Amino acid sequence: MSLIVQKFGGTSVGSVERIKNVARRVAKWRAAGHDIVVVPSAMAGETNRLIALAKEIQAQPDPRELDVVASTGEQVTIALLSMALLELGVRARSYSGWQVKILTDSAFTKARITSIDDKAIRGDLKAGTVVIVAGFQGVDAKGNITTLGRGGSDTSAVALAAALKADECHIFTDVDGVYTTDPRIVPDAKRLRTVTFEEMLEMAGAGSKVLQIRSVEFAGKYKVPTRVLSSLTDPMMPVAEEAKAGTLITFEEDPHMAMEKAVISGVAFNRDEAKITVHDVPDRPGIAYAILGPIADANIDVDVIVQNVGHDGMTDMTFTVHRNDYAKAVKILKGQVQSHIKCRDITGDDKIAKVSIVGMGMRSHAGIAAQMFRTLSEEGINIQMISTSEIKITVVIEEKYTELAVRVLHKAFELDQV
Amino acid sequence: MSLIVQKFGGTSVGSVERIKNVARRVAKWRAAGHDIVVVPSAMAGETNRLIALAKEIQAQPDPRELDVVASTGEQVTIALLSMALLELGVRARSYSGWQVKILTDSAFTKARITSIDDKAIRGDLKAGTVVIVAGFQGVDAKGNITTLGRGGSDTSAVALAAALKADECHIFTDVDGVYTTDPRIVPDAKRLRTVTFEEMLEMAGAGSKVLQIRSVEFAGKYKVPTRVLSSLTDPMMPVAEEAKAGTLITFEEDPHMAMEKAVISGVAFNRDEAKITVHDVPDRPGIAYAILGPIADANIDVDVIVQNVGHDGMTDMTFTVHRNDYAKAVKILKGQVQSHIKCRDITGDDKIAKVSIVGMGMRSHAGIAAQMFRTLSEEGINIQMISTSEIKITVVIEEKYTELAVRVLHKAFELDQV
Repeated sequence: MSLIVQKFGGTSVGSVERIKNVARRVAKWRAAGHDIVVVPSAMAGETNRLIALAKEIQAQPDPRELDVVASTGEQVTIALLSMALLELGVRARSYSGWQVKILTDSAFTKARITSIDDKAIRGDLKAGTVVIVAGFQGVDAKGNITTLGRGGSDTSAVALAAALKADECHIFTDVDGVYTTDPRIVPDAKRLRTVTFEEMLEMAGAGSKVLQIRSVEFAGKYKVPTRVLSSLTDPMMPVAEEAKAGTLITFEEDPHMAMEKAVISGVAFNRDEAKITVHDVPDRPGIAYAILGPIADANIDVDVIVQNVGHDGMTDMTFTVHRNDYAKAVKILKGQVQSHIKCRDITGDDKIAKVSIVGMGMRSHAGIAAQMFRTLSEEGINIQMISTSEIKITVVIEEKYTELAVRVLHKAFELDQV
Repeated sequence: MSLIVQKFGGTSVGSVERIKNVARRVAKWRAAGHDIVVVPSAMAGETNRLIALAKEIQAQPDPRELDVVASTGEQVTIALLSMALLELGVRARSYSGWQVKILTDSAFTKARITSIDDKAIRGDLKAGTVVIVAGFQGVDAKGNITTLGRGGSDTSAVALAAALKADECHIFTDVDGVYTTDPRIVPDAKRLRTVTFEEMLEMAGAGSKVLQIRSVEFAGKYKVPTRVLSSLTDPMMPVAEEAKAGTLITFEEDPHMAMEKAVISGVAFNRDEAKITVHDVPDRPGIAYAILGPIADANIDVDVIVQNVGHDGMTDMTFTVHRNDYAKAVKILKGQVQSHIKCRDITGDDKIAKVSIVGMGMRSHAGIAAQMFRTLSEEGINIQMISTSEIKITVVIEEKYTELAVRVLHKAFELDQV
């Protein structure tokens, strides 16, 4: 008998029929003797509807009040799901964030969990009750309702699993696991049976949107074994079978498994960014801050940053931002920064794509980068930027080559053989 | 400078535009120097939508979980209204029932308020903040969300006014006050500038649906001066004018006013009931309980009960129930009661109406009942049942005569001259 936290996303609870299906699936796991905590999101579209309503009143809604509105979406789902379980004859009880309570800081609309009181939940589990906790929401020390930001239900689930020392956290979503790359682009893409926490983190950052990155960090910090599963399968699929389905995110590296494992686990890509180059800036201390400080002050996130060694006391700096922030970032640089740092020019391109290969195996294998670059050059794809981490190599290329690059890299690293 | 609690019903906050209008009205009162607590209902139709959603999952929704769902309607409105005030540059802050906190018993879907913590509200008022409290909802001692049942927002508002010792409670609704009778039936009906608490209670019970009866009881118990006002007037109507508009429900009887006052304040009617007669029951102790006990056990409310003096040890008992409960009540009587009490027959009629005249003045005036009965008989309207209280006389008549009876009584008691 295990304690399992099961999270269901907005699509999985998007209608009355789907909520009933979730209840059947949960009831099946409960009947198999497991203690179950369920964390549902709001019904698909509901959070957007509520935020749109708020924006009709205030173009920039007050963050405290926005959280009061937005948190009602999950409050509805927890009660409906509880009713659906009761209707199946399963003991169930719903808890909102403040009822648990899930204590957060006071950063409305993007709060962070600071602690979870597990007393009430443990009491219910002991009594054989399925506990249903609203995802995405919490309460601050002053009793204000807070929300964790987009995708926060994943974080709620993983944080609950950590607080309860759950045996596993199941993230039910509309895909059946983590793939070597996007199957819509590479039909040969394979589902990974396991992926390490570090790989998952790099793949989430590189644009694989299966799990919210913050929840992966949480899972890693507390070493919560987390399984990504499909909620679109038959809810009555045998428990023994479902327990091995999907993709398990692991933390301890099993040496035996590592030997068997492919060098590369996946190819990720992202077409949401734009690149900006600041040309011929003086190569001296403080210059990076002079360029990126005003960008950060405008709340623009910077992703890849590349600066090469300089010549004649001058260098170029290139970085990427979200495509929505591109015009704003260029305007800031031309308006506030250019004259100040005396650079020659500022250019940019929003028709780029970021393509990454990710894998624990590349740490101990030389030549991975070389193989990646050769594969791309053989197709005539020019590499505009390169950035690397311990287990990831990222290149920025022209957007139109995205699918081609993903396909050839997937094949070159034999991911269709996984 | 006064402390005023203002309640706005579902129609008054039924759209974004209307919420903005409520904000303008509240801002106007605040600008006039008053401390304001606002209690909004859910947006019109929202509570019904939520309950319907719950019933798609469970035909008889679990009461605890139903309250979790239903309470979200008001949670959305408080935040939207708070945003609308902030947008006007008015300090505002929303509170759900548990945040206040409004403590109730644990009777889910029909909870009663046991206490209200006024600390947070007083602090905000002192800082010049408009406080917006969710109507209809509270929290029980164990931290479960509760709701007060239909019309509960009126009760929330009056209870808050009592707890805060407010100078006045404004109930904004879609009518501009309490009328001598329904203006749709008697175009000459006049708005009452004041009505006593006792009259209001009798008129609410007799079917005038301006205020929920429980809120009137609350207002009476704590002597909260309560004004019924229209939310359909120009929100920027001068405060001095609005302060005298509508109908004020009073508690102390002003002797001077009483002298000027008409004997009768209004004619109320109700077509929602059906009558049932149990014929020839033994006229002995315990028989009323034997008849009405099983009805009460089935959760059927009984309204008017009439039992006349008996003959030859036998008597008839007649009572009214809500029309929706008529068939069920007759079935219970024929199935469980008839053979037990050995009555001759059980008959009934669901084509009846209840018409009442209400007025503090009738306590000191003889002949009011006689005048009522003569007025009806002159129109050939047969009186089937009579029931009286200190300040009300109710008759049950054939339903088709309802409008006629209301019109002739309104004229006979000179209510068009008020």
